[in-house]
Amino acid sequence: MIIQLLDTIRKEEQEAVITLMSSAGFTIQEVITRHARYLVCIGSNEFDIRKAGAMPGVKDVYRVSDSYKLVSGKWKQKTSPVRLSGDVLIGGKEISMIAGPCSIESEEQVTSIVRHLKDVGIKVMRGGVFKPRSSPYAFQGLGIEGLKMFYRICKEYGMHIITEVMEISQIEEMHDYVDIFQVGARNTQNFNLLRALGAVEKPVLIKRGISGTIDELLQSAEYIFSAGNEQLILCERGIRSFENAYRNTFDINAIPILKQKSHLPVIADPSHGIGIREHVPAIALAAIIAGADGVIYEVHEKPEEALSDGQQTLNFEESTLLNEKVNKLSKILSDV
Amino acid sequence: MIIQLLDTIRKEEQEAVITLMSSAGFTIQEVITRHARYLVCIGSNEFDIRKAGAMPGVKDVYRVSDSYKLVSGKWKQKTSPVRLSGDVLIGGKEISMIAGPCSIESEEQVTSIVRHLKDVGIKVMRGGVFKPRSSPYAFQGLGIEGLKMFYRICKEYGMHIITEVMEISQIEEMHDYVDIFQVGARNTQNFNLLRALGAVEKPVLIKRGISGTIDELLQSAEYIFSAGNEQLILCERGIRSFENAYRNTFDINAIPILKQKSHLPVIADPSHGIGIREHVPAIALAAIIAGADGVIYEVHEKPEEALSDGQQTLNFEESTLLNEKVNKLSKILSDV
Amino acid sequence: MIIQLLDTIRKEEQEAVITLMSSAGFTIQEVITRHARYLVCIGSNEFDIRKAGAMPGVKDVYRVSDSYKLVSGKWKQKTSPVRLSGDVLIGGKEISMIAGPCSIESEEQVTSIVRHLKDVGIKVMRGGVFKPRSSPYAFQGLGIEGLKMFYRICKEYGMHIITEVMEISQIEEMHDYVDIFQVGARNTQNFNLLRALGAVEKPVLIKRGISGTIDELLQSAEYIFSAGNEQLILCERGIRSFENAYRNTFDINAIPILKQKSHLPVIADPSHGIGIREHVPAIALAAIIAGADGVIYEVHEKPEEALSDGQQTLNFEESTLLNEKVNKLSKILSDV
Amino acid sequence: MIIQLLDTIRKEEQEAVITLMSSAGFTIQEVITRHARYLVCIGSNEFDIRKAGAMPGVKDVYRVSDSYKLVSGKWKQKTSPVRLSGDVLIGGKEISMIAGPCSIESEEQVTSIVRHLKDVGIKVMRGGVFKPRSSPYAFQGLGIEGLKMFYRICKEYGMHIITEVMEISQIEEMHDYVDIFQVGARNTQNFNLLRALGAVEKPVLIKRGISGTIDELLQSAEYIFSAGNEQLILCERGIRSFENAYRNTFDINAIPILKQKSHLPVIADPSHGIGIREHVPAIALAAIIAGADGVIYEVHEKPEEALSDGQQTLNFEESTLLNEKVNKLSKILSDV
Repeated sequence: MIIQLLDTIRKEEQEAVITLMSSAGFTIQEVITRHARYLVCIGSNEFDIRKAGAMPGVKDVYRVSDSYKLVSGKWKQKTSPVRLSGDVLIGGKEISMIAGPCSIESEEQVTSIVRHLKDVGIKVMRGGVFKPRSSPYAFQGLGIEGLKMFYRICKEYGMHIITEVMEISQIEEMHDYVDIFQVGARNTQNFNLLRALGAVEKPVLIKRGISGTIDELLQSAEYIFSAGNEQLILCERGIRSFENAYRNTFDINAIPILKQKSHLPVIADPSHGIGIREHVPAIALAAIIAGADGVIYEVHEKPEEALSDGQQTLNFEESTLLNEKVNKLSKILSDV
Repeated sequence: MIIQLLDTIRKEEQEAVITLMSSAGFTIQEVITRHARYLVCIGSNEFDIRKAGAMPGVKDVYRVSDSYKLVSGKWKQKTSPVRLSGDVLIGGKEISMIAGPCSIESEEQVTSIVRHLKDVGIKVMRGGVFKPRSSPYAFQGLGIEGLKMFYRICKEYGMHIITEVMEISQIEEMHDYVDIFQVGARNTQNFNLLRALGAVEKPVLIKRGISGTIDELLQSAEYIFSAGNEQLILCERGIRSFENAYRNTFDINAIPILKQKSHLPVIADPSHGIGIREHVPAIALAAIIAGADGVIYEVHEKPEEALSDGQQTLNFEESTLLNEKVNKLSKILSDV
Repeated sequence: MIIQLLDTIRKEEQEAVITLMSSAGFTIQEVITRHARYLVCIGSNEFDIRKAGAMPGVKDVYRVSDSYKLVSGKWKQKTSPVRLSGDVLIGGKEISMIAGPCSIESEEQVTSIVRHLKDVGIKVMRGGVFKPRSSPYAFQGLGIEGLKMFYRICKEYGMHIITEVMEISQIEEMHDYVDIFQVGARNTQNFNLLRALGAVEKPVLIKRGISGTIDELLQSAEYIFSAGNEQLILCERGIRSFENAYRNTFDINAIPILKQKSHLPVIADPSHGIGIREHVPAIALAAIIAGADGVIYEVHEKPEEALSDGQQTLNFEESTLLNEKVNKLSKILSDV
Repeated sequence: MIIQLLDTIRKEEQEAVITLMSSAGFTIQEVITRHARYLVCIGSNEFDIRKAGAMPGVKDVYRVSDSYKLVSGKWKQKTSPVRLSGDVLIGGKEISMIAGPCSIESEEQVTSIVRHLKDVGIKVMRGGVFKPRSSPYAFQGLGIEGLKMFYRICKEYGMHIITEVMEISQIEEMHDYVDIFQVGARNTQNFNLLRALGAVEKPVLIKRGISGTIDELLQSAEYIFSAGNEQLILCERGIRSFENAYRNTFDINAIPILKQKSHLPVIADPSHGIGIREHVPAIALAAIIAGADGVIYEVHEKPEEALSDGQQTLNFEESTLLNEKVNKLSKILSDV
């Protein structure tokens, strides 16, 4: 159960609500985000919610039977958009396109890609500086200095930045050079990292785990929300299956289901979701028509020379064509 | 390697080609379909194909390195459409919509659904009379008498029929009452059944196995083709995964990959692919924009009362809406 | 619910039982096997079973809530052994070792292997003559003539035969040359074949499907049992997973779970279960200590020259060593 | 390629080796552990290793083609045991049994379990104080104070401790109260944590990821080893599959394969591997006979009252019986 409190609730009023709920057998967790304050009550379902709703200082009460609460679509049905500076919305009416290289490599690379993104109207650029690689001997990214360079060039062009954070200690050093923190598929259940990101006032995009269930993804988002950060984006990026004809199995089913189960924006990552360059656009369009709020994909001036993920990265021509198609599709989206 | 022979090839010419290929270390299988004749040569890749191409009676020679040959997109790149009477094409320019109940139940049920399909412009009706059920105690279908009733009503309305065949001995009794034979997901690797369907002059739709790989699906199609039947349709219907939020994991990746790897038409089954009624349209549209040649879905006047699969079956209103959306999407498909 | 009838039940007594159960809302299926007769009652659970138990002609009544009934361990807790001629038991106190080549290839091959099996004390030989192969161009087995040769040699040596049946029409021609029919992993849900094997008076070993659940395997066995054949053996042979370090994922968990859920003997196939020759013995021993009633594995005089599955086939030396280990392990089995 | 250096190598000698390898096109990483020093050379395989072997200061050179190097069985074939104080070995000749509760709950709980473990001869106790839980509202463990209490009681009884570390910042505070650090299945690819554990001089047990491949597990171990810590233990704990009859699919195949691919000790976790209390002993014994160096399992005085994982936790009687069986099995292990 979620009890949303008025911002003006008095201390003794809140204590009265807590006493009521405790005595009804619930465990209560107080959640204060930058947007609102809540009591999340876990426990027995036999309770007349009107009792809590009638108490002074209570704004509203919602029954949520899911294992996740604050991210559930059961108490908030409309998508909660994430807002960046310059009125850029993710989860608003427009499809949000996010693109960039797998890894940040050099000033020249970043500059050429930023310009391409500006040309096609994209407002958020992805690019990794801390790279989670299976092997300790593989390229691990340019690190914080790479991020500063990435940031400097993006800001020249008015471009927003999303990049992956792998570790709690990186949050502070990255903070001023990031618009959206990304949690990677290998960290979806790194609960300490999630909780730490709950204390940050910047949005977080959280990728589904490599074999994570939809329910686990939502519970991971709940970790961040319940630690104080409501600005969340979910990302479907393909799951691991027995099929070897492609890299991951993009779970198109997850798109309408996440949109229904949660009020958070849902973004698709077709680059990792299929892992084959020529098929990335087909999966991107499929995700959009299935209800995704946006797409994050990999683009590079010369994919063949990229330091990582070249085989699933579009070149500028392919990227331009994809954006044109998305624009055409957008126009009929409310119809279909 | 595929050697396509001229229809006019003389016996001794053909023997000369076989001798050439045998002596080059290939194993040769002769394939005669209603459309053409081929020699499929399996073996060593070191061979100058011009040698075979120059022989009398040879129409063309194609190098195909895949484990499947005749169904491969490497020798025939355009989709090979399946043609039904009345100029109904599957794999042509138009999206092919196929719909109907999970099980044929009664005259009233069939009649109401046929009328609905006519209303929305659908030309092929699905409906099972032999039902593969996990439990021997579950409803097993109306059998051959049900099929005859189904056929009679469909023909009144000029509707084509697709229905599942489970066993070789059923082929003959079903033959005159079927326009397309369907091979179900549990029989995708029932190789005896596949070979027997190669001798039939009616089209066959073959569903991907419950955990079948893309390669296995294509090899299963190769069984039918190499036994003489070129009129084949592939069907993606979701694979088994660890996720329990839905029935099967619809493999959207399989759509563009099958279209690339094979020249056969590819149909999507979103009803089994997600298994949740309200999300079936989203997956249907996603499959179409990803390149599917059509969609097969379950519809019933009263899904709540269906004898099987009610939870994934659209009612008439939902079905009408889906077809309207497909029509709108179709108009911009060449653009996106 | 299972109602076991006395062999001496009179027709009107049985009709009275059926009337009672029908009026209580159950659907009744009569099952007559060579060993006993039953009424399997499907439906509502609210029923006082003593009412049925007290009726004339009723031997016993068992409540079984599983989706499978007659194969359930809930009404018969001790293993129901399968008995071959010469007092060979599968599912008795001794571990049953079954071995032989993947494919029957020649008289010399069969003879050398039969002799090896006699040497190590094995009483049942496996060997395929109808081979389910993914590709239509791969070796498909020697067919019925191969089986007759296989049979002739085995009978000279007093060896029993298990071999795969792929199709209903093969049952009759194979019948006199087979001691145990095997249903392969691709046919576990070929329900027509299962039902046909219910009418046979020879034992059937049924392999778990390639991605079949434990519940599906038991329901498939129920198909055969409810069609009249109680002589059944279950076989775990590995499932399909994301892991590529080996051929299949041998599901060791399935061994104790099948033994608990069912009264049928359970055999392990470590050759397909891991698919790597040098590790086959480790998996065989693990399955035995986990509770398997026996092991079926592949052996060949020269695995490197086998026509199929050579990479997972033991040679005679390895096979001898495995049997010695099984014998040592057997001695302490009741202790551990 | 791994170049093992003499401890006495001089600086200019080492530089000469590095120069040689660099000019041959390799990327070189220097690894210094408490036991030895190495140069790990990544790159082209065309190289006469005798050239490096002949250089002053070089102890030995090993060609390792795996994606992991220092943990590979290709350069070190015998198991590298992990040694705890009091001459307790993991990976030695004896089977190592490790047991304890899922979560540390109270002094009484710890005391009763320590005493039980002493009774059955177990020398290492498991118990979590930082618990990775899918839901933020579930019990998260007693934290560092719980660990201090756990440590105090264990040391009274001469018991060693293994417990999970979830985050880099916990390493230091846990350090003095831990004998073995455990990396949980959700952190197997938390590469920053792995690297930080490379700087610790205590052993690390690393669990296979929830859907981690065998290769990924070995590469994760390589992260720790290459960061300086050779004292590593691998743990198979079941993978995620489509089967719902149990919690995880214990991958028995992984046991012999890990033992072959790596020189690190391999431990089995049957509690998580099947997740059903009554079947835990069967899986434990199966893992041992398949080659595991030991078993880690969950035990509690009253499993029904445990704060977590009660359904897969043995009581003292069951635990005693399991240890007796392991002892009996141990005596014939070299025979089988």
